[in-house]
Amino acid sequence: MDKKINLSESQMPTHWYNLMADLPKPMQPALHPGTKQPLGPSDLAPLFPMSLIEQEVSTQRWIEIPEAVQKVYRIWRPTPLIRATGLEAALETPAEIWFKWEGVSPAGSHKPNTAVPQAYYNAKEGIRRITTETGAGQWGCSMAYASAQFGLSCTVYMVKVSYNQKPYRAAMMRAYGAECIPSPSDRTASGRAALEADPDTNGSLGNAISEAVEDALNDPTAHYALGSVLNHVLIHQSVVGLEARKQFEIAGRWPDVLVGCCGGGSNFAGFTFPFLPEKLDGSKKIRLVGVEPAACPTLTRGKMAYDFGDTAGFTPLMRMYTLGSHFMPPGFHAGGLRYHGMAPMVSAAVEQGLAEAIAVPQLETFAAGLLFAKVEGIMPAPESCHALRAAIMEAERCKREGKKEVIAFNLTGHGHMDMSAYNAYLDGKLSNNHYDEAALVESLKHLPEVK
Amino acid sequence: MDKKINLSESQMPTHWYNLMADLPKPMQPALHPGTKQPLGPSDLAPLFPMSLIEQEVSTQRWIEIPEAVQKVYRIWRPTPLIRATGLEAALETPAEIWFKWEGVSPAGSHKPNTAVPQAYYNAKEGIRRITTETGAGQWGCSMAYASAQFGLSCTVYMVKVSYNQKPYRAAMMRAYGAECIPSPSDRTASGRAALEADPDTNGSLGNAISEAVEDALNDPTAHYALGSVLNHVLIHQSVVGLEARKQFEIAGRWPDVLVGCCGGGSNFAGFTFPFLPEKLDGSKKIRLVGVEPAACPTLTRGKMAYDFGDTAGFTPLMRMYTLGSHFMPPGFHAGGLRYHGMAPMVSAAVEQGLAEAIAVPQLETFAAGLLFAKVEGIMPAPESCHALRAAIMEAERCKREGKKEVIAFNLTGHGHMDMSAYNAYLDGKLSNNHYDEAALVESLKHLPEVK
Repeated sequence: MDKKINLSESQMPTHWYNLMADLPKPMQPALHPGTKQPLGPSDLAPLFPMSLIEQEVSTQRWIEIPEAVQKVYRIWRPTPLIRATGLEAALETPAEIWFKWEGVSPAGSHKPNTAVPQAYYNAKEGIRRITTETGAGQWGCSMAYASAQFGLSCTVYMVKVSYNQKPYRAAMMRAYGAECIPSPSDRTASGRAALEADPDTNGSLGNAISEAVEDALNDPTAHYALGSVLNHVLIHQSVVGLEARKQFEIAGRWPDVLVGCCGGGSNFAGFTFPFLPEKLDGSKKIRLVGVEPAACPTLTRGKMAYDFGDTAGFTPLMRMYTLGSHFMPPGFHAGGLRYHGMAPMVSAAVEQGLAEAIAVPQLETFAAGLLFAKVEGIMPAPESCHALRAAIMEAERCKREGKKEVIAFNLTGHGHMDMSAYNAYLDGKLSNNHYDEAALVESLKHLPEVK
Repeated sequence: MDKKINLSESQMPTHWYNLMADLPKPMQPALHPGTKQPLGPSDLAPLFPMSLIEQEVSTQRWIEIPEAVQKVYRIWRPTPLIRATGLEAALETPAEIWFKWEGVSPAGSHKPNTAVPQAYYNAKEGIRRITTETGAGQWGCSMAYASAQFGLSCTVYMVKVSYNQKPYRAAMMRAYGAECIPSPSDRTASGRAALEADPDTNGSLGNAISEAVEDALNDPTAHYALGSVLNHVLIHQSVVGLEARKQFEIAGRWPDVLVGCCGGGSNFAGFTFPFLPEKLDGSKKIRLVGVEPAACPTLTRGKMAYDFGDTAGFTPLMRMYTLGSHFMPPGFHAGGLRYHGMAPMVSAAVEQGLAEAIAVPQLETFAAGLLFAKVEGIMPAPESCHALRAAIMEAERCKREGKKEVIAFNLTGHGHMDMSAYNAYLDGKLSNNHYDEAALVESLKHLPEVK
């Protein structure tokens, strides 16, 4: 059998899959942060185009992928499904290990899967500029790339400490024609306030979100874009799992376990949810495993409750697993997984028993990444190393139990711009930073009250 | 038609193509640097395995690709042939522009195509360690990766200025398990001599070659590996062109012009030479265009003559286009193209009228790279931008002449680790550094005398 299962462009999905159509119990609506009443479309209109607001609340199972979006997807999609034969051999496992390789996209991760439709819908509704924030820089690069495809300007507020630590990411956004601004900046009132409070601040994702939202609200030709958490983002990412389904069909396999890392939840949802209909109707068995960093254990230690998406409390209240919007996880290198909440749709899937979650410590994720680089060649992003680590744990379990299961994980991106993190690991400078247990207990006591 | 032409693994070439079988006039042999007599296999045996020495002088048209090498190739090969529809639209050209995308390899360029067989043959003949040098780092990463595939240790001498400027490249070699040493180092006599002469030296490729060769000669379990110039390297790279031929057949096209950048010459040869048999027997027309930096114009301003491959005069004398082994080109960002000589096989193809050459200045190559990133997504390596720039010039010519030609170029690698160069360009800090005309004239007067 081939090592890689490739699809032709004619086999690409023409529709995205929306789990909201199939969830046994419907999701609770998002609430207005002030009134705490269910959010209406008009509440979101200053920030998002109507097509995305409709997708946000849609219970349609299939949502058509516009032809213009498919055309851009074809630049790198379909992505290959690859059998990690080298890893199987290294682990001496009877299991098969497969991975969906999303790092082949221009920006190097799965993020363009939603950046492209977001840019498209905004351009179609007459918007001229996108504002967004970025932490590690993967999302900023993706939105910069997607904006260029549809002639939009793009302004990215990048957390200042990342801006300084990852100059290549900022350079890539710039090369795609976007403006990348270290946050906090003097461009916005919230930025100026943060700088006044502490001129030497490192910045935070919460503050960068505030700046991007404020910038969009002050410019009628601009909209804001978010790279995870929201329903429409998860829906767009379903293109990953839909392709993987077809590829497993070609390989004559049905996976036993699907693994994805969980930060906001979009890659995990996109990769795994398209396999749920058969689990829901009982015709097939499949396990969905979400993997989070032990230092930020939203699904495994958080509470299912209404909470804000940001630190300042500007965003709607969403019902989700959360560590509390003021909870401050310790620093670690998988910046894309350092978020206090979890996508409401992923939270619902876990609450309803469709998916499970585990947390893994940082050091073993880097060890997994280095093993993978040696035996499969690809240098995975630190976030992707979490999924990889959990896939290895499943393969080790299969070895102990003598089971020939089919394990698949989503390899969300390459680590070409994260080599300093690998260097730090090899230099013995990393540890399994633990969060502050007392602070977490305290944080969970003070979630917003909602009747 | 699909944007990308993918081959299945069963369509991968099983043999490499060797132009030496088809060259109208045979190539002149390499000469011993001391005796200036034709080189025998025993002269090379301390550095290279016998299988590679045989390939070096082979006139067989087809050389079998070992199954173990094919197995590793399958990690990323076959690579896609992609139609640059976005670039065509941006240029408003009637021509078709296609590119072979070699940046999908683990190390991010075409270099593993030869690193893998070199590691394989060395391992097979009992060698335990590979020594090599690297300038910009692409080759060092590739050899580090390939060594890991066959259980070999790998020592890379990296030019010190690059080691300091490109820490991500050094980190990648380290992640693959190689030792990457800034050169000159105190590991070798030639390194110590260089350090004694100037403790603050930036190092040079010539010195790094000397260190790697010396290291291999002093260890009977070690061999040396080279990433371009030599015949066996060019032969291995033919896998690129052989795949492209099949892909063009599937697309129902025969290209009018093939373009590749030229440093040592291996990617250009690998991409274009497999299309030569039809040109040689007169059954089809095709133009082969080698593109070099205007600041280091080996093919367009050099002399066809016997010269050394290195500065110190340790290597055999090869008959090739050369600027003189002491010629010092100005600094520029396509480090992989900064070499005084050109592969003897490429030199022979140009001398015999099978290929042509042009030189392009630095600034327009970066402009081309940024245009390409915006319309096609991929961020090309500075070296690859030279081929891209020439392909654009061909497409512009087609527009002027109203011709629907099929243009194809080899996109040899991504620029993820070269973003500081793009930043420098966007900051207006780059120029079209010109070489010293008087120094070149002088250098060409003092090539080694060979009777």
